[in-house]
Amino acid sequence: MKFKVWAPEKRAMTLVLVPGGGLRERRLPMTRDDHGYWEAEADDVGGGARYFFAPDDGTEVVPDPASNYQPEGVYGPSEVVDHGAFSWNDGDWRGLPFEELIFYEVHIGAFTAAGTFAAVIDRLDDFVELGVNALELMPVAQWSGDRNWGYDGVFLYAVQNTYGGPQGLKRLVDACHRRGIAVFLDVVYNHIGREGNCLERYGPYFTDKYQTPWGKAMNFDGAWSDGVRDFVTDNVLYWAEQYHLDGLRLDAVHEIYDRNAVTIWDRLYEAVKNWERRAGRRLWLVAESDGNDPRVVRPPGTGGRGFDGLWLDDFHHALYVFLDPKGWRYYRDFGTIDQLAKAFSEGFVHSGEFVKFRHRVHGASSAGISGDHFVVFNQNHDLPGNRPGGERLSVLTDVASLRLAAAALLLSPYVPMLFMGEEYGEETPFYFFSDYREPETTARLIEGRKQQFAVFEFEGEARDPQDAAVFEQSKLRWERRQERRHAMLLDWHRRLIRLRREHPLLRDLSKVRLRADVVGGHGLMIYRYSADRLLHLVCVFNFSADTSLPVDIGYAGVQQGEWRLVLTSDEQTPDQGDKALRLPPRSVAVYELRASFADDGP
Amino acid sequence: MKFKVWAPEKRAMTLVLVPGGGLRERRLPMTRDDHGYWEAEADDVGGGARYFFAPDDGTEVVPDPASNYQPEGVYGPSEVVDHGAFSWNDGDWRGLPFEELIFYEVHIGAFTAAGTFAAVIDRLDDFVELGVNALELMPVAQWSGDRNWGYDGVFLYAVQNTYGGPQGLKRLVDACHRRGIAVFLDVVYNHIGREGNCLERYGPYFTDKYQTPWGKAMNFDGAWSDGVRDFVTDNVLYWAEQYHLDGLRLDAVHEIYDRNAVTIWDRLYEAVKNWERRAGRRLWLVAESDGNDPRVVRPPGTGGRGFDGLWLDDFHHALYVFLDPKGWRYYRDFGTIDQLAKAFSEGFVHSGEFVKFRHRVHGASSAGISGDHFVVFNQNHDLPGNRPGGERLSVLTDVASLRLAAAALLLSPYVPMLFMGEEYGEETPFYFFSDYREPETTARLIEGRKQQFAVFEFEGEARDPQDAAVFEQSKLRWERRQERRHAMLLDWHRRLIRLRREHPLLRDLSKVRLRADVVGGHGLMIYRYSADRLLHLVCVFNFSADTSLPVDIGYAGVQQGEWRLVLTSDEQTPDQGDKALRLPPRSVAVYELRASFADDGP
Repeated sequence: MKFKVWAPEKRAMTLVLVPGGGLRERRLPMTRDDHGYWEAEADDVGGGARYFFAPDDGTEVVPDPASNYQPEGVYGPSEVVDHGAFSWNDGDWRGLPFEELIFYEVHIGAFTAAGTFAAVIDRLDDFVELGVNALELMPVAQWSGDRNWGYDGVFLYAVQNTYGGPQGLKRLVDACHRRGIAVFLDVVYNHIGREGNCLERYGPYFTDKYQTPWGKAMNFDGAWSDGVRDFVTDNVLYWAEQYHLDGLRLDAVHEIYDRNAVTIWDRLYEAVKNWERRAGRRLWLVAESDGNDPRVVRPPGTGGRGFDGLWLDDFHHALYVFLDPKGWRYYRDFGTIDQLAKAFSEGFVHSGEFVKFRHRVHGASSAGISGDHFVVFNQNHDLPGNRPGGERLSVLTDVASLRLAAAALLLSPYVPMLFMGEEYGEETPFYFFSDYREPETTARLIEGRKQQFAVFEFEGEARDPQDAAVFEQSKLRWERRQERRHAMLLDWHRRLIRLRREHPLLRDLSKVRLRADVVGGHGLMIYRYSADRLLHLVCVFNFSADTSLPVDIGYAGVQQGEWRLVLTSDEQTPDQGDKALRLPPRSVAVYELRASFADDGP
Repeated sequence: MKFKVWAPEKRAMTLVLVPGGGLRERRLPMTRDDHGYWEAEADDVGGGARYFFAPDDGTEVVPDPASNYQPEGVYGPSEVVDHGAFSWNDGDWRGLPFEELIFYEVHIGAFTAAGTFAAVIDRLDDFVELGVNALELMPVAQWSGDRNWGYDGVFLYAVQNTYGGPQGLKRLVDACHRRGIAVFLDVVYNHIGREGNCLERYGPYFTDKYQTPWGKAMNFDGAWSDGVRDFVTDNVLYWAEQYHLDGLRLDAVHEIYDRNAVTIWDRLYEAVKNWERRAGRRLWLVAESDGNDPRVVRPPGTGGRGFDGLWLDDFHHALYVFLDPKGWRYYRDFGTIDQLAKAFSEGFVHSGEFVKFRHRVHGASSAGISGDHFVVFNQNHDLPGNRPGGERLSVLTDVASLRLAAAALLLSPYVPMLFMGEEYGEETPFYFFSDYREPETTARLIEGRKQQFAVFEFEGEARDPQDAAVFEQSKLRWERRQERRHAMLLDWHRRLIRLRREHPLLRDLSKVRLRADVVGGHGLMIYRYSADRLLHLVCVFNFSADTSLPVDIGYAGVQQGEWRLVLTSDEQTPDQGDKALRLPPRSVAVYELRASFADDGP
């Protein structure tokens, strides 16, 4: 088989086949092409063979920067993976429209006791029962050590050995697809982890020109950057092609810098569109970006980057301040109900306003961008994980607020995402954890987190992320779902998800007609209507902890029709078509109106 | 009058009025507004008053970062300029369309013996006679010392004291406008000079996030960047408003970084368009950019930056290799006549190809962008100035090639620019010169230039830029224009400029229909035609030094009509309408055809 590695400035390159499987060590010289790729053909070598490369004089052996598998971790040899050997059973799978997705974010290690891909398969029926249809896996690219969040991966093409490697991931994806569940993967292209990072042994993957919070930026526009661009672009297609993934979530794209006339985003968009035409299915790309920049999801022809979706942090912040009494301390630029209404109706809350936290104006308006371009959440890995105490929303607020939060999320005009355990109010912390082997990596990590906590003035001591107990304590306690409080929350989520998936005014995101109005100073009325204005849905939220909300759901001007209470979080809520009602504190109610004739509407 | 200074993170600010004009020193406390601007009102103070600001505890006095005048240089006090006091005589001036401009780049200090704005006024009749209609002034923003190219200015609002200050510049612009000459100014927003730079004494003008070749980048997107953006945006409008400038050339915009949703380019575009509506005239913005990025001149709605014009370096490089036998050493990615044809027909020569000099693919296609968006030149300040010997084109090639070069430039479908003295083949060097006062600035400069020269492997020792003689020797020797060789070249330029300004197929750039074909392996035929295809212009260039070019100017398929030799650089050129002709070596000829009926054309 053919071995290939990019190292444009090296004088020589040797393929070193590691002894094993009856073969002894072999060293093969490699030859360079015009673009800096070195190649060697090795006979009698296939899946399972282990190897290194030896740059320049060949005295030191280094793993393959594009290794598909590191069976012994980041310092060991790379292993050839025969992707063709896997028997896929998902031939019928055609994917799901992005607007119909309900994401569920999973950390493979902390999701089950075993912490493997295989152990997730046993839980898939629970996902189906819950109603979520898209798993979002935190990064699985090989990192140093046994446990890690995954954002410091160093082999972008290798699937973490302690999770079950390439075979494990394929089996999980296959099993998901057979149950109608899409699988997304979190990938990191803004930096590469420090420990076990061998990329610089091969080529100029990094640049001093731009500084990221995690060190040197990836070199997407400097000398020899074509190879780095290929490395990333090919990686995106690799996950789709070899692992049948439905989409990727690109971590912190605002820390990816490229000033070239044709940027990495232009290249990636073109490559993905070409792949989709070839493969006959979609590959969804979702961005995490700190910029409140609508261009992330606009098409390239209008100066956009063409992402299918974007994590909408502002939705979380605008809502969170109404859930946690201390919320204003972390999000001091949020706090008004008008901002929450804006989050529902426009997307970005900060769309050009001065933001105190940033000491500058921030963002541009996303009004007019259809809701299926935004992913919303009340929690994700970062929100508990970046607190010293790892607290989930479930321990920061009361049950009524948790029900409100779930309703706001699942009745939103955006693609919702739950964080593992959120559906039943899991209370165990989700800490930041790691398993580095080099003292300098750990020292840098601790210092970085200290600075981060200082910004937000969190209370409490942070746990030691290197402590194995911190990882163990972050694991879900799934068995508690039977307890009353948890079972109630789980049921509430199931009902909301069912309503969302079944009701046409909630399901068809790209066609949503929506208006969000502040009512009574502490309430929000989200009003939806069909194109023919015969079907109306009114979601009323009361965010006050102690006051009932007087509200006239008939404000829209619809005079005649049949009102129906579709869903409520509180038994006190009037269940009949009384247009003037009093909504109990911390509650939500959803009413449907079938009008007897089309009305002007709001 | 009101004094104002931006210093968002300072605890206090004092206005210090310097004694003079019968007034004694006064210190006035300033008050801060919400955006970090400090203000103080001082009675009995007007134009000519000198002042400092004293940040924080007031022990140190610092000039105004937005000083309009530094009469004693960068270390002295700032002076109030009463802009309203100047009597303008250009009330009739309405500006010129960008496509009709013929630029002439001037270094005020080296253009005349006196080296002042006033001395340029005496030469304006020569400009009129030559036919150029737009002066492009190298930077005049106050720098440290008496002489400098100007790219290390430190007071972006102050006009260099040794040139004649604000009054001097206004008189020059006024005099130009009265003669129908537009005035453009070179401005630098990618960095601020080191010596005398007081900006950091006031606020976060710079960022560590991005590295430029000249040090820290300007802070256009970090904390408090709104003030930095205002500083630059207001500066652009200031030159138009207070100095009646017609346009600005922005230096090296590829070293300006801004990842915000609304970038400095979006802000600037909007500010300029608003100003234009208010003022009733245009303010042209021209970019220097290394990126071969068509977005620089595309409108913001399509992801562009909306510049009116862009310096087209590729045109120079593609042509230069045919003029200087050693040209290939500096431009090893150029050298084919097809590239020159592409420069004429599309603009960017590198539009996605791998470029050896950059070790990566470079640029995107500019095909389809109308020619009035590009500024072309055979020389500019950088080309001689960044060679150790300061050689102008006139001493690097022969007279025939100079004539060819001038014709290629002035018959191009782009807005042409001459560098001062080019029109008569000035042979004195144009060195890099400076007059720094601090040893560290000089040491950095020398080191930087050494590295730069190493890249291009120039021969010869560089002169000491600090040596006053180097500046003196860079001054034009205008008197030599009478000598035969110079007078001939001057006449050639005049004829070309006249033809360009008068011939409809050369004048109306935005309507140019053009085709550029390689002929005979070392010749170029630039074919233009009118919309009705009745008028045709054929410019034929023979770049060979020793071979006549056999060429059929009738190739376009036009069978009947009246051929006329419009212009030639060589008396051997057949002057009649013989469609098959032999063009002498190193020569150019322009033929016009008035067809007797419309033809399909090429």
